[in-house]
Amino acid sequence: MTDEQAIREVVASWHRATAAGDVETVLNLMSEDVIFLVAGHPPMRGRSSFERGLRSLLAQHRIESTGEVQEIEVSDNLAYCWSILTVRVASIAAGDATVRTGSALSILRRQPNGSWVVVRDANMLSLAS
Amino acid sequence: MTDEQAIREVVASWHRATAAGDVETVLNLMSEDVIFLVAGHPPMRGRSSFERGLRSLLAQHRIESTGEVQEIEVSDNLAYCWSILTVRVASIAAGDATVRTGSALSILRRQPNGSWVVVRDANMLSLAS
Repeated sequence: MTDEQAIREVVASWHRATAAGDVETVLNLMSEDVIFLVAGHPPMRGRSSFERGLRSLLAQHRIESTGEVQEIEVSDNLAYCWSILTVRVASIAAGDATVRTGSALSILRRQPNGSWVVVRDANMLSLAS
Repeated sequence: MTDEQAIREVVASWHRATAAGDVETVLNLMSEDVIFLVAGHPPMRGRSSFERGLRSLLAQHRIESTGEVQEIEVSDNLAYCWSILTVRVASIAAGDATVRTGSALSILRRQPNGSWVVVRDANMLSLAS
């Protein structure tokens, strides 16, 4: 498996595990010191912060996401991946949903064991009209 | 000058040249195939698209930007830089201004001549309240 294939598998696994509510698998795809950046909020630092947010969201919602990888570039142990995503968050009780689409730019780092994990994530999704 | 110092100088030069209305200098800090990503808009591809937008904005506005580099990481010829920025766009005629703040995550590439240029830019600024 090439680095690019490995990184595509990280992205695909992220989508699958999120839809399945498999939080542990999602957490294994990011570093402990991951930072999530999104407009209008302070940086969200650390895997445990992400975990709290995701578990809270999944308690009452189902998340379905799809995406097209636009570009992956690898340099030694660092890589970036640009994707265009569609994320649908549906309330389990009420059934209503919000859909966000747009670009995400992720920085990945190769771990000592050879696997790739997300270390920084820039989220530019906005409400779909 | 280390790579990190060179990249800090790219960021500082971008702020200075934008404030001075020195479009040519700003354009020299990005690659021809640069892509700008921001929520709510399709990806803006290419230096010439950026140039048209910047010249159009500068025709009637003054741009003042400041920022704090949070992190720079370099791997061979690839680097990323995370900054928290404040950008003030003031109408020259009317004097009113909008201020946006937030994170920007830029990918830079080392050119054959050794200089660093921005190749991808993720903009997560939002209107300051």
